[in-house]
Amino acid sequence: MADLTNVRIVLVEPLYSGNVGSVCRAMANMGLCELTLVAPQIVDGWEEGKKLAVHATDVLDARREVATLAEAIGDCVVVAGATARLGLYRQHVRTPREVAPELVKAAGDARIALVFGREDKGLFNEEIGMCTHLIRIPTAPAYISLNLAQSVMVCCYELFIALGDYEAPQEKSVIAPAGHRIKLMEMWRHMLLRIGYMEPDKADHMMQGFQRIFTRGAVTEDDIHMLMGVARQAEWAANKTPPAEK
Amino acid sequence: MADLTNVRIVLVEPLYSGNVGSVCRAMANMGLCELTLVAPQIVDGWEEGKKLAVHATDVLDARREVATLAEAIGDCVVVAGATARLGLYRQHVRTPREVAPELVKAAGDARIALVFGREDKGLFNEEIGMCTHLIRIPTAPAYISLNLAQSVMVCCYELFIALGDYEAPQEKSVIAPAGHRIKLMEMWRHMLLRIGYMEPDKADHMMQGFQRIFTRGAVTEDDIHMLMGVARQAEWAANKTPPAEK
Repeated sequence: MADLTNVRIVLVEPLYSGNVGSVCRAMANMGLCELTLVAPQIVDGWEEGKKLAVHATDVLDARREVATLAEAIGDCVVVAGATARLGLYRQHVRTPREVAPELVKAAGDARIALVFGREDKGLFNEEIGMCTHLIRIPTAPAYISLNLAQSVMVCCYELFIALGDYEAPQEKSVIAPAGHRIKLMEMWRHMLLRIGYMEPDKADHMMQGFQRIFTRGAVTEDDIHMLMGVARQAEWAANKTPPAEK
Repeated sequence: MADLTNVRIVLVEPLYSGNVGSVCRAMANMGLCELTLVAPQIVDGWEEGKKLAVHATDVLDARREVATLAEAIGDCVVVAGATARLGLYRQHVRTPREVAPELVKAAGDARIALVFGREDKGLFNEEIGMCTHLIRIPTAPAYISLNLAQSVMVCCYELFIALGDYEAPQEKSVIAPAGHRIKLMEMWRHMLLRIGYMEPDKADHMMQGFQRIFTRGAVTEDDIHMLMGVARQAEWAANKTPPAEK
């Protein structure tokens, strides 16, 4: 199974340990584990970082710290830098969604890096120059600068989705076949007449309304059993005799 | 133009103001502006929240605080709750990507809400019961619980992308036509022979290598001009006479 263990997150001169901790948690959420800090300038100690990493302190503890970006990415075949700014040499930026399949493919065979700049100044031009790809996260025009850990999350999330092996939880109850739905409508028709909800001459018309309510979404076998139970119980209450089956 | 001003973010009993501030920034990044807190239990004052909102303090200042979830969502036609936990009545969760187009469509005509639970306990079953949609963010199985503000970011990001009106920056320089690329190769062939990089009998073969390098990606008119300039300058340096044109 493909995974993201070949994807290294590189933070250049991060200032706040809380951001680094949040990055670790985002990485762990999306299945990444390798973090490299380039010349970290942490101004607030590591307490906040440990707190925000929560159950990803192993990622934080295993971080590598190096002096230069060149050292951090030396062994990576793809180096994707995140930038919010635009400029002459940043015109070829692409969105994380656009670039993710290519990055995941490259990470299947070799080490790749996603590089994020300083909280206040991003990546400098000479650092942009070391990147093979530039990523820009789409934003509303009024506020284009994302928090560092948020940027990392969006990029890691797109890589994780591009892996394509997330399986959405499935309804365990199967969709009911038409025969069960028809039987349900018959029981409700009988019950609604019995409790005096509708007159016999209006029944056809009104049952179309219930048909519409009960088939607006998928109706599962479990749903059918619950709704049949309501019909039986209402008839029982109206008759003051136990239902035929329950 | 469609926008996300009809999308309300609802946080149920948030504990940390830093998370609320980060939520505000994420909202502003993605073009949302309406935040409602249900019975906030902020334990750390609002200083951290203001700091992390950065340029989104207007969203923070305009927040509404109400006592119950029912009040927070009373006017919303769609109420999408985020949950990491699974259970019998949470089986119909869908991913933010799956549900985003539907939510954006609903938000075109009416108010909708995205509801996020407590940092430590998420949404309770009775709160889940007030939702029309359930959202679960795909994660690696080892760590399924996202930070509150990260969850909000992923969901808002998916809504923003589903709007479909983000325009990626474009290369301003147009892709060069074949004629210019052929002319470039001729100039390089001439220059590489002149500077003694290759022998005439190897030229055809070696030029295939340069052809491959220069056509691996798109080559723009600006690229062509730069590379022609290199050829001219190298010939000039070899000849010690000024180039014919520059």
